[in-house]
Parts: sequence; structure tokens; C-alpha cells
Amino acid sequence: MTEPNRFDVPLPGLHIGHPVDDVATPALLIDLDRFEHNLALAASLTTPHGVSLRPHAKAHKCATIARRQIAAGAVGVCCQKLSEAFALAGAGVSDIHLSNELADARKATLAAQLAAQVKLSVCVDHPESVRQLGVAAADAGSRIELLVEVDIGQNRCGVSTVEAMLALVDEIATHPSLSFRGLQAYHGGVQHVHGWQQRRESAQQSAARAAQFVAALEQRGLRGLTVTGGGTGSIEFDVASGVFTEIQAGSYALMDRQYGELEWRDSFRPAHALHLGATIMSTPAADRVICDVGLKSLTVDAGLPSLARDHNAPALTGWDYALANDEHGILRRAPHHSSHEAPAWGSRLRLIPGHVDPTVNLHDAYVCHRGGRVEAVWPIEARGMAW
Amino acid sequence: MTEPNRFDVPLPGLHIGHPVDDVATPALLIDLDRFEHNLALAASLTTPHGVSLRPHAKAHKCATIARRQIAAGAVGVCCQKLSEAFALAGAGVSDIHLSNELADARKATLAAQLAAQVKLSVCVDHPESVRQLGVAAADAGSRIELLVEVDIGQNRCGVSTVEAMLALVDEIATHPSLSFRGLQAYHGGVQHVHGWQQRRESAQQSAARAAQFVAALEQRGLRGLTVTGGGTGSIEFDVASGVFTEIQAGSYALMDRQYGELEWRDSFRPAHALHLGATIMSTPAADRVICDVGLKSLTVDAGLPSLARDHNAPALTGWDYALANDEHGILRRAPHHSSHEAPAWGSRLRLIPGHVDPTVNLHDAYVCHRGGRVEAVWPIEARGMAW
Repeated sequence: MTEPNRFDVPLPGLHIGHPVDDVATPALLIDLDRFEHNLALAASLTTPHGVSLRPHAKAHKCATIARRQIAAGAVGVCCQKLSEAFALAGAGVSDIHLSNELADARKATLAAQLAAQVKLSVCVDHPESVRQLGVAAADAGSRIELLVEVDIGQNRCGVSTVEAMLALVDEIATHPSLSFRGLQAYHGGVQHVHGWQQRRESAQQSAARAAQFVAALEQRGLRGLTVTGGGTGSIEFDVASGVFTEIQAGSYALMDRQYGELEWRDSFRPAHALHLGATIMSTPAADRVICDVGLKSLTVDAGLPSLARDHNAPALTGWDYALANDEHGILRRAPHHSSHEAPAWGSRLRLIPGHVDPTVNLHDAYVCHRGGRVEAVWPIEARGMAW
Repeated sequence: MTEPNRFDVPLPGLHIGHPVDDVATPALLIDLDRFEHNLALAASLTTPHGVSLRPHAKAHKCATIARRQIAAGAVGVCCQKLSEAFALAGAGVSDIHLSNELADARKATLAAQLAAQVKLSVCVDHPESVRQLGVAAADAGSRIELLVEVDIGQNRCGVSTVEAMLALVDEIATHPSLSFRGLQAYHGGVQHVHGWQQRRESAQQSAARAAQFVAALEQRGLRGLTVTGGGTGSIEFDVASGVFTEIQAGSYALMDRQYGELEWRDSFRPAHALHLGATIMSTPAADRVICDVGLKSLTVDAGLPSLARDHNAPALTGWDYALANDEHGILRRAPHHSSHEAPAWGSRLRLIPGHVDPTVNLHDAYVCHRGGRVEAVWPIEARGMAW
């Protein structure tokens, strides 16, 4: 819906093979060595243990990353919105689980059309949605696999009783164009429990709740079903649970400040692969400098960004990102910090965003670097795909 | 940098002349009657009183809105980022003040090139930026008007002493390709002071600080300069100050929850013209329903969205948007609310976002409606233009 822009200007200094620190800012950067480390790590924790990895593309919205994840052993990806699924399918991703509900007959029609072109499954938690999808798939001559979402403590979507789950399974069975593939059981709150041991206990409790739903299905003779869920914070516990057949972790590929601050153990310690490149654009006071990354380049719903200490100049030691305005970040020096050096006007820094998913959704492309040089630019095809 | 998408699908139900409530959600909606009311209101408070209105395009990022504001009497617009200025210039906006500093020689070069095509002014608060712009404009054969940003209490960018201001004025004078146009004096904190009387006093204090800088320029014989600043919260006080020659208000055109909650008087009471259309996509509990608008469709840096009471069904009385997840909004019913009715699965609602600027930056287009029907779709050309 955007008009062609007569004055379109590319990001200054962005050239393959040139130094990444020459790229004008704000710029969304991926450290490829760390990214590849994270992909290999998640693959090694899942597939060899008989559990599928189906990374959540809501965390990166990028077909190149989705293809890289599948090449590293993932069975496909999750999308959270139908338009996101269309964007990734259009860029060649052919196995998508829509890990969310649809409540619009037009969207059901489009889902049925998409299911004729790629392998598609969709979540349901309401009988009317099942009926809409059943009619739409019959009309399109396609088949949609449905997963019933069950609430294992997240208190968001999903049915909370075995009876409601079975009613949906029965409804699905009345539609020849639909098939029941299993359950989605996701608890976002578990992902962010700080302590490793406490997080393990929370994940075990969630898995136990999911197991109750699975047991009720087994009593009906329904076996070998998919149970999809889990995330970056609980991946190793979900694999060990014996309940989940498929893990939906998303943030692990790029990471963010929020996840990075959790307690990790050596068994799974993803690296910060995502940064915001920023520039000091104003140096008005000895204890205050201003950078060019604000609320339109990162989001603060999970708190302020941190400074990537391993990437930044010594002059930034003792400084923190203290306040985000729309287009500015205000950095302040800690009062006790004794250095007389201050970041120079025009100097660069790297920030770790608080929350990867909504931050990525602000940008059109990743600038991917290795060894200090730009190696690739990956479009974020599903940026802004909100319906 | 985005690839053409083979499966591109337009927002379902979006057709000119059709009911706006048929448009699939999430959708960013403009009520055109209210928008036009707001434009006329701001024009009536400024231009007839000898003060120019230069609306801030950072709040809407849309060339159509910029053109409508100029047609209603504005002298031009402000942009906060150079890429934003390029996007709007490319869509026909020909008078732009870049109300922010540049700290990159490549950006100075691009600004000089843009200044050869449209009327462009730029803020400075550092001598090196003046030098970069002077060299770039000389190379491009263009002329850039500079405004020195002075800090009147915002504690963000800008020089805080008369001496520093005069040093920049002197530096500008050494570059034949540059001209000194005046001062930018903006205090964002004043805009959000709740009480009308307290806000007036804060605005008067800010204007008094700006007047000290103006007086020092007048002592140097510099008269008739631009003094640009002010905003939606202080517009009537800034006009009355006798200090500001140009008002940069931006949010007034569309408004948001944060501004709407201030105390207003009849002299200036802009209307909520911007809503997020949402759909109830899950109804898991009697006191909890889930809508399809979360952190990827609105931002919460200024708090959660409110429900637009004048647009929503009676079933939503007593409900609030209680929690924003990435793609979900969790609505809860107040405990004391006695209604037995609950919002129906698949029903629609309208939300007022907490903060217009970063929310608009998430979307590619406005769906504009009047009398319940879609009248136009306006592209948001500067969406994501962050550098």
C-alpha cells in the first residue's frame, strides 16, 4: 500500500564486505557467528532426543532465518499471525504452524487457500473457529491440520478443561476437510522465571498440566499426536519432560536483554547475536550524552536496552541507557563512576534490546556481520504483518 | 530491501466505500471528521495570531497528512530523522525542518543534497556538525538553514548556555553555504503536565528560558529570527508567549490516550481521531477475553491503550485492556462490574493507543473513515525511517 518513493535513499555505508562499523545508525545487526552457535545449540538439544524443533518466526519475521533454522534440522516454523505466515510462505517457507487462533471467516478462507500451497496447521480454542475453517477448507479443496490450544497456566487463550478440549476434538471430527493433529500447550510466564532451578520446576508443572490433557486423549484412543509448546527459557526442561513432541522456541536465535539476564547453565547458554548499532549524536553534559536509538528503533515493554559491554569503547564504561524518547536514547553516567573520559560526539555503540520480538518488528532488514565486516543483508519479510 | 512477496494478500474487507467495521483487524483507523476538526483547531489557534504552525510529521509519518496540514495553513512540517525527511520529500512535501541533530558526515552530505531539492533546515548543537553541514552544502552547491537547539529544561539535546549558542552562531557565519535561521527550544516534559493551569505555568517558564537566548541574539543585532518549539500540550500558551514564532505540535492531529487524559479547556480540545480496530479472538473465561492487538500493533511505553467507549458495544462496559503480549491483548472485567453480558467471540472493538508516535511507526497505512465507511487509505511513507 506504499507508494514508490522518488527520493529513496539506502542506509549510508551499507556495503557487503565493508566494515559493519561504517554502517549508518540506527541499524539492526546480527553477529553471524553467535547466531549460528545458537542455531546449532538448539538443534543439538532437541532433534537427537527425538523431539522436533519448530522455531517461532514471530521472534525474527525473516524467511532467511527460517530457512537457516530448517536447514539446521527444524521441521518447520511457527507463525503467530496469518499475514506473517503468508509473508514467509511467499518467501519459500513451506511448513508453517499458525500457533494462534483465527476469529474471522475471511481469514479462515485465506488460511484454507494457503493450506493448498504449503503444509499448514492452525490452533483453535472455539467451536465456531473450527466450523469456519472446516467450511473454508472444504470450499478450497484443501486440508487443514488443527491443534487444540490448552491453557496450562498462561491464562491467555486456550481451553482449560478436558471436556472443552474433547468437545473441540469431536467438532473437528465432523469436518472431512480438517484433521486433528494434537495439542498446543504454551506457558509464556515460565520462560522468564529467573532462576534455572525455579524455571525447571515451573516448566515441569506446566508439562504436568499438559500431560493431563494428553492422558484424556489417550483414553479416547488418540495416540501419536503432536504436543507443541515450550520456549527459549524452558527448552531443555521441555525436551526432558516426555510430554512435548515439538518445541516452539523463538528468541534463542537472536536473544535479548530480558532473556540474557536469566540464570543459565552450560547445557544451554545462547549468545547475544542481536544488537542495535547507535551513534552518540549530542554530548550536552559531562554526565549525559544522547544516542540516536529511541522508541522507534527498539521497544521498552520489557525494560530499557543494555549496553553491549564486549562491543563498546572504554569511554562507555559506567554509562547506562537511562531513558528512551521517541527518537533519542539518553545515556547517563553512574554518579560513582570516576572516569574523566566521556563518549565522543559521533562515536558508536551497540545496544542489546530489551525484547527481541517487538524490536525486530520495527525494522525492514538485518545487517549481518562476521569478523567485523558486513556479510549479508536479510529482509524482514513479515515486519508489520499484524493480522 | 524487501523482496517482492509472491503470496501478498491485502487486508481482508478493505474496500473504499464499504463499512469500516468490515475491515479485518488489527487496523489503524482515522476518523476523518475528528482529524479535520483537529487540523482546523490548531490552525485557528496559530496562524491568525501571527505564529506559524509547522506540525511535527514524526507523529504521523504520512505525506497525505502533511499535505493536508499545509493546505490548512501550516508553513511546512518537521521531521525528526533525515530518512523520514527523504520519505516525505519523495512524496511531495517541499518545506521540511529537521528538528534534530546529525552526527555523521554521510548524513550531512545527504542533507545537503536534499536541500538542493526542497526547502530544508536542520538543528545543530555541536560545532563539528556545523562544519560537516557547511562542507557538504558547499560541495552540493546548496544552502542549508540551521537552527541552534537550546535546552530550556528538557535535558536532552541542545546547548544550555548563551556562550555555547553564540559560538555556534559564529561557526555558522564562517560557512557561506549555511545560514543561521534561529533557535529551536523544545521541552517535551511540559507537554504532559496534567493540569491546564500547571501546564500553562510550565510552558511560561520554558518560554522565559527561551527568551533569555533570544535576548542575547538581539544584543548581537540578530532580529527577526525563527524560534521554533512547543507542542500539543502547550500550543495555546506558546502562541501567547510572544517568544515562539513557530509551533511544532504533532500529536494534536490524531491524539492518543496519554494526551487525551490531560486536563483541557474549551479553547483547545483535540478529539481522538486515531483508533486501533481489534477483534475478540478468544473468550476463555467469564472475566477474561483476548483481542488480536498486542505489542506489534501498538506500543505501551506510555501505558496501556484505553477502550474507545463511544465506539464500543455495551458488552465492553466495565472491561479494560489489562495486559499487552506481543500479538495479544488481554481484556479483563472489573471485579465490581455486575453485567452478565460479555464480549462475544469474533466481535469488534476500538482501542485508543497510549502513545501515537511509536504506534503509528508500526503500521504501513491508515484506514480513513467517515460516516462508518472507508473513504481513503493513506500510506505511512516514513514508517520505519529511523536514521
